[in-house]
Amino acid sequence: MRVALGVEYDGTAFAGWQSQANGNTVQDVLEKALGRIAGERVRVTCAGRTDAGVHALAQVVHFDTDVARPQSAWIRGSNSHLPPAVAVRWAQPVADGFHARFCALSRSYRYVLLNRSVRPALQQGRVGWFHHALDVAAMGEAAQALLGEHDFSAFRAAECQAKSPVKVCYRADIARDGDLVTFDFRASAFLHHMVRNLVGALVYVGKGKHSPQWVAELLASRDRTLAAPTFDPAGLYFASVEYAPEWGLPPPGGVIIRP
Amino acid sequence: MRVALGVEYDGTAFAGWQSQANGNTVQDVLEKALGRIAGERVRVTCAGRTDAGVHALAQVVHFDTDVARPQSAWIRGSNSHLPPAVAVRWAQPVADGFHARFCALSRSYRYVLLNRSVRPALQQGRVGWFHHALDVAAMGEAAQALLGEHDFSAFRAAECQAKSPVKVCYRADIARDGDLVTFDFRASAFLHHMVRNLVGALVYVGKGKHSPQWVAELLASRDRTLAAPTFDPAGLYFASVEYAPEWGLPPPGGVIIRP
Repeated sequence: MRVALGVEYDGTAFAGWQSQANGNTVQDVLEKALGRIAGERVRVTCAGRTDAGVHALAQVVHFDTDVARPQSAWIRGSNSHLPPAVAVRWAQPVADGFHARFCALSRSYRYVLLNRSVRPALQQGRVGWFHHALDVAAMGEAAQALLGEHDFSAFRAAECQAKSPVKVCYRADIARDGDLVTFDFRASAFLHHMVRNLVGALVYVGKGKHSPQWVAELLASRDRTLAAPTFDPAGLYFASVEYAPEWGLPPPGGVIIRP
Repeated sequence: MRVALGVEYDGTAFAGWQSQANGNTVQDVLEKALGRIAGERVRVTCAGRTDAGVHALAQVVHFDTDVARPQSAWIRGSNSHLPPAVAVRWAQPVADGFHARFCALSRSYRYVLLNRSVRPALQQGRVGWFHHALDVAAMGEAAQALLGEHDFSAFRAAECQAKSPVKVCYRADIARDGDLVTFDFRASAFLHHMVRNLVGALVYVGKGKHSPQWVAELLASRDRTLAAPTFDPAGLYFASVEYAPEWGLPPPGGVIIRP
């Protein structure tokens, strides 16, 4: 039987999603907790791997198991074995053809930036920080160049393992709410460090170092060496994954992402 | 010279505001950081002491010093000596007659409750949690009984050191935003554990254990033994302090409180 899970985590204390020898990853603690419920080793596959310090509100994973357990065991049972920074939000059986990664139609990320002169305290670890005033309208204008199908090599980390740098961006919205500036991206898939690199470039526009047109030029250049710094992982949230309705998973909406 | 400061902190790792022998309090780290800037011992007085695990977005403190420093030294200099969970947001000289506690006209607290079946993960330490559905309209109706001048003994901790249990409540609003239920209180002053006890009572109404009228009866009884449990400090935020405009302090508004 194949089971899908929705997983929320605070990435601060983890060395990212993917299993490592030292065991300090979200995948490691989740597999261990599920293994306690299943009474056998469980291996999970996720929709999108996240880096150290990056959070998730609705990571989706699937795993195969021969044991039958009620949904409440996969949820509440696992949560009793997980550290406080990780929780299973939902669980349900899925068709064998479902694959958390390959069936994903798109992923959504949110980046939350605290834009004030004083560094974060209460929101430390949950937000990026930029201390100079930002022109959100200019950033929003610049971000429109990202929509559609593009080669995103200019925003790709050197270590990126994706087969192709060509992705389709469906959403690139920027909004201010008091001191917080939020960047919402939805794309077919994301390259390694892509969101954090996009935020870096957009902040260059927001602080007036470059015009909004510069982001379009950067994208067209496909040259990472021209781009701005990679922003802090603390502000990055893997917000949702979208699948075809026939898989019958809970809708990705309804989640409030706030640092 | 007397100086006033606005201070933000994540209370999770502290044994509360007030100085203790072990030094693990917000007051201790703040006095130590200010002392580094002043080059002499600094003692601060705050508007409202907070318990272990309780957060603040705009705690106000004052201190006296003989040394002259630019405002940026009291802000950025102190922040470079403070742990990441504490930050000075503003600093300014004030008249000698100003007293952070005695001049406060009112204080505002927010309680943030995660209302969903699954325990918090990403918001762990920043929210209270209640797993059964809550009727926010019933809680809002019940809270109206708190407005005005009352003896709040029914919501007072046994260890409370306040001279009088009579306080004036100016605001008691409850609102839902998705999974989050926020309780906003403003009062002349608050008794020890008062907000957390109020939330406990209102949750009893919200889950249907008691009618909205029960809160008015509880208040009238002045009997703490009748009331509901004290809620988790993790969801409590000291949100703002209100002073007369002639003191010339930054307005308490403009702060976005989100866990």
